[in-house]
Amino acid sequence: MEGLEYSRAWLAYRKTEGVGDFAGSIVCRGGGVQLKTAATELKAAFEAMTGRTPETMEGEDERGADRPCVLLIEEASGGEGYRMELKDGVMTVSGGSCGVLYGAFALIRKLACGDTDFNEAKAPSKPLRMLNHWDNLDGSIERGYSGASFFFRDNKVVVNERTEAYARLLASCGINGAAINNVNVKGAASRLITSEYLGRLREMSEIFWRWGIRLYLSLDFAAPLSIGGLGTADPLDEAVRAWWKDKMAEVFSAVPRLGGFVVKADSEGRPGPFSYGRSHAEGANMLAEAVRPYGGLIIWRCFVYNCRQDWRDTKTDRARAACDSFAPLDGSFADNVYLQIKNGPMDFQVREPVSPLFGKLRRTKCLLEVQIAQEYTGQQRHVCYLIPQFKEILSFRTFNGSERDAVADVIGGMAAVSNTGSDCNWTGHDLAAANLYGFGRLAFDNALSAEDIAGEWIALTYGRGEKVIRNIRKMLMNSHAAYEKYTAPLGIGWMCAPGTHYGPSPEGYEYDRWGTYHRADHLAIGVDRTPAGTGYTEQYNPPLNAIYADRETCPEELLLFFHRLPYTYRLKSGKTLIQHIYDAHFEGAGEAAELIRLWKELEGEVEPGAYLRVLERLNEQLQSAEEWRDVINSYFWRKTMIPDEKGRKLY
Amino acid sequence: MEGLEYSRAWLAYRKTEGVGDFAGSIVCRGGGVQLKTAATELKAAFEAMTGRTPETMEGEDERGADRPCVLLIEEASGGEGYRMELKDGVMTVSGGSCGVLYGAFALIRKLACGDTDFNEAKAPSKPLRMLNHWDNLDGSIERGYSGASFFFRDNKVVVNERTEAYARLLASCGINGAAINNVNVKGAASRLITSEYLGRLREMSEIFWRWGIRLYLSLDFAAPLSIGGLGTADPLDEAVRAWWKDKMAEVFSAVPRLGGFVVKADSEGRPGPFSYGRSHAEGANMLAEAVRPYGGLIIWRCFVYNCRQDWRDTKTDRARAACDSFAPLDGSFADNVYLQIKNGPMDFQVREPVSPLFGKLRRTKCLLEVQIAQEYTGQQRHVCYLIPQFKEILSFRTFNGSERDAVADVIGGMAAVSNTGSDCNWTGHDLAAANLYGFGRLAFDNALSAEDIAGEWIALTYGRGEKVIRNIRKMLMNSHAAYEKYTAPLGIGWMCAPGTHYGPSPEGYEYDRWGTYHRADHLAIGVDRTPAGTGYTEQYNPPLNAIYADRETCPEELLLFFHRLPYTYRLKSGKTLIQHIYDAHFEGAGEAAELIRLWKELEGEVEPGAYLRVLERLNEQLQSAEEWRDVINSYFWRKTMIPDEKGRKLY
Repeated sequence: MEGLEYSRAWLAYRKTEGVGDFAGSIVCRGGGVQLKTAATELKAAFEAMTGRTPETMEGEDERGADRPCVLLIEEASGGEGYRMELKDGVMTVSGGSCGVLYGAFALIRKLACGDTDFNEAKAPSKPLRMLNHWDNLDGSIERGYSGASFFFRDNKVVVNERTEAYARLLASCGINGAAINNVNVKGAASRLITSEYLGRLREMSEIFWRWGIRLYLSLDFAAPLSIGGLGTADPLDEAVRAWWKDKMAEVFSAVPRLGGFVVKADSEGRPGPFSYGRSHAEGANMLAEAVRPYGGLIIWRCFVYNCRQDWRDTKTDRARAACDSFAPLDGSFADNVYLQIKNGPMDFQVREPVSPLFGKLRRTKCLLEVQIAQEYTGQQRHVCYLIPQFKEILSFRTFNGSERDAVADVIGGMAAVSNTGSDCNWTGHDLAAANLYGFGRLAFDNALSAEDIAGEWIALTYGRGEKVIRNIRKMLMNSHAAYEKYTAPLGIGWMCAPGTHYGPSPEGYEYDRWGTYHRADHLAIGVDRTPAGTGYTEQYNPPLNAIYADRETCPEELLLFFHRLPYTYRLKSGKTLIQHIYDAHFEGAGEAAELIRLWKELEGEVEPGAYLRVLERLNEQLQSAEEWRDVINSYFWRKTMIPDEKGRKLY
Repeated sequence: MEGLEYSRAWLAYRKTEGVGDFAGSIVCRGGGVQLKTAATELKAAFEAMTGRTPETMEGEDERGADRPCVLLIEEASGGEGYRMELKDGVMTVSGGSCGVLYGAFALIRKLACGDTDFNEAKAPSKPLRMLNHWDNLDGSIERGYSGASFFFRDNKVVVNERTEAYARLLASCGINGAAINNVNVKGAASRLITSEYLGRLREMSEIFWRWGIRLYLSLDFAAPLSIGGLGTADPLDEAVRAWWKDKMAEVFSAVPRLGGFVVKADSEGRPGPFSYGRSHAEGANMLAEAVRPYGGLIIWRCFVYNCRQDWRDTKTDRARAACDSFAPLDGSFADNVYLQIKNGPMDFQVREPVSPLFGKLRRTKCLLEVQIAQEYTGQQRHVCYLIPQFKEILSFRTFNGSERDAVADVIGGMAAVSNTGSDCNWTGHDLAAANLYGFGRLAFDNALSAEDIAGEWIALTYGRGEKVIRNIRKMLMNSHAAYEKYTAPLGIGWMCAPGTHYGPSPEGYEYDRWGTYHRADHLAIGVDRTPAGTGYTEQYNPPLNAIYADRETCPEELLLFFHRLPYTYRLKSGKTLIQHIYDAHFEGAGEAAELIRLWKELEGEVEPGAYLRVLERLNEQLQSAEEWRDVINSYFWRKTMIPDEKGRKLY
């Protein structure tokens, strides 16, 4: 990726008209570490935008500064919130130390985007806004599509210039936590909480903290065995509890900025409390007790299901698993435990219903987990802008009995499986950076629209050229719908290649152990999840349960998730289900072609290297979309032998 | 594998009645290196069988020996052939030095098996009887199911006690060549022909040679670029030709016992002469010229096909590839080139027709390549005794116009992709050793029957207990048919999991790039390979072309290889094709259960460790066979919706 500086991304500050007015001096008031970071960042931004270097002053009084060009940044109460005000030629940004940093980035963003409304007060919608990295200590990344890890190499923790560049990137969009190692804690990763690694982790955590970011680690629940030399990891065993307490005292003393731990327990072969006949609450609370003295958090993943299902078994329904396991435990978790719940009941498919578990937890803190690593959505070789999907999820009403009952009202924050790696552009596909930026912005401000976030990211990344903004925004905003159309139909999911999860394989997961079946035969397809079937719909609060259970009221994009239907079933459009499948796949592939057309209009408008990088991936996307179209359509044609009404080519 | 010595295998000599008669003295006449090996082996065998140590004498005269117990081994003419004679109390084994070694093993085999017909003269059916190991220099084995490599570790050549044990094992069954590295020559393997490795290879080759075995290497056709520093590997380029000549002078001077090289060129991404617009003959002959001064051979694989096929393309037929590429080149290869031809036109499926290429080469030396590594036949977790299949192939008439026109008449030898690894029992599954033994025996003597070979191997391995012989022979002899029944039907092949090739995936290879399609739809399945279809049948000489092209005369086990047929097509049995599929799968899984029953009868009759090892794999086989049965039957049931006439459970 010639010519691309990883430090740039959407922070490539460029000469901008009308920024000079308050960039003569920067006056700092306050001693917080993030306030200093804010001052440095603002200075760099103004230098790049105006070509002049502002004077930076520390002091009580802005009057000595070079009026009328004064930017006052001021530490006040407010934690992560900030106030911004332009009055009498003085631009003031105030707030807690972290808040001022967010305010500084907000000001830079406004200037870069040409937004002249400088009077605002903002606080983050939620306290936790995290990335989960699935980086392994050998430097590989599970489901990583952007090169190797920049946190680990050869079983060592890496701290270098990129550590700071990464933290800056996150802070600029509002992310305040990062769990840097894979939730599948394997090999050397078990030893991250030993003296072998703590020194380096402290260095990293201090760099992170300058940007308002807490370092988190993923934890091996069986650590008392794997590194402690105990004979058990039973969370009710006194020796185990004592071991964890001692261990956490050691860890937090060495790394005082540590935020806490993410735990994947009793899931896909990971150890957990079930091995000892204990509940998830007993497991999580034991850890919570050990980290409580240091203000630590335990983030406990709810991705627990039977991953050794017999495909012949039609009674077991993986979709039920999270709710079956965790809903009964509501109220039994310590208050420094967050349950991290995947957005849907399965696993980050392009279309799933929202997890019913969000509607069941009234007395438990929880996080919404999404995946910006595009595992099932094109692996950063396809454009798939996920923010519209995240918006839908946040606004989904759980009908949990509260007045404000949307997912956004229920959660204490958001976590995203990260899409970053050591590629120069961070995210493999240049346009995939919009998902990283967008996740942070949306997590910070749940009220932002996907369109506005896209607009910001484009302006910051590519400048404010009208056609650039228009075309790229169109590309991003339509990309998820296009991907959905040319892949698995109507919420059925899982028609991807087993293992890699890239490209079509209509029956790749059909006879496997993962609980992911469509059971298509010559006449019908889908799993009946109504009370007449697996009863999954009953996990939703009324009236959602009834809405989903009735094929007439069930949202059509989820029809085959909830119902088993004949191919001749008529949709609201009047089309049969099979004709809808054919049409959607032809349309979707057409939309992939349209992406190329829109991008090609930008030749000469974006930097040539970036232009070609994206074009190459768009071409691959089109080829892949056509493959999806032809495989899925041919699969259904061969199975149903119902011809396409429009007589298009099937194989 | 507790209690198992890798040196034993089928050479676990045990106390045997009636062996004492001619084991008093061993008299050796001749100085050949293999003759000395023979004397040592005989001495060890007699010691173990009789409990007494025979006296070994070298000299002109056997009269000084302890009559009447004399075994005379005598070097004479005859190369690899031997004569054995019992006369006046003197057992004489004579032949070329290697021949005597084969005679010694023949004598030991007769004694162990209770065969008292000691008068025989034998010469190997064919001069070349090779193993191809797909071992990588990092110690892994491509398609290896028996542990890591014992030839390579950490990019080093390993020479240790196992080297000799391996050579002894091969010699005992008649194998005389071994190519030790993967035909996909990658990484450090390119450098095997440099001074870095030649010293160790020489050591290995000398050990091999004591047992009559030539060492071969797999060669990187692009070596002039990868290690030679040239800008091309064009076989007609003078600098390239000179480089190879110099290189071969160096290699054969360092490793004079080297037999030659195996080359996979222009296949599955390997470099080859096509890159330079040259033919396979030009490529092979250039190498042949370089190795000729040293008596070296070039073994050129014919596994050449388009591995980037578009599944939508119904014109291209991978089955045609070998014949299309090589038949026109008949007569254009140097006489120290052997074309190595896979038994079938695809790739070692449990059922394929015999490659038509055997019927097209009248003026070209060739080898039959089989695969005892059970890549597609249960990966040494299923019992699948392959010798009956190899027998069928050898006796297959090519109708090439000669009086003797069977494959066995056409070939200059056989090569098997090896099933060995560093597991103590060599082959992962104890019973898979029958394929290694059987391959060697059959390659040495094409006239042996699969039953007799099985009987020998069982007696040598487990002793001569009647029930042991009867049950294991039954298990072996029925195992290939059982595997065929419960996997992909009627020669269609490729319904296995992509990549791993273990377990069912009915459409796993259907929309892929490998040219392996069944194109099943609601009504019909199969590829029409008649002149009305891809025309593959026309690659066979008359009358085979017509026999295969007519669905009525086509052997039914190959019906879906050659024809596309409706599920309602009636077989000779009167069953419909679909009913045959259902029945075969239920039968096959039943036969897997029967294997367990037969084995369980042997509890107490075979050594307990071996008993349990095999039982464990048989249980896995049954589970896997039931998985195959249910997946394949359910796949066809869902697609056709034609019910099983017997009303058995489909899913």
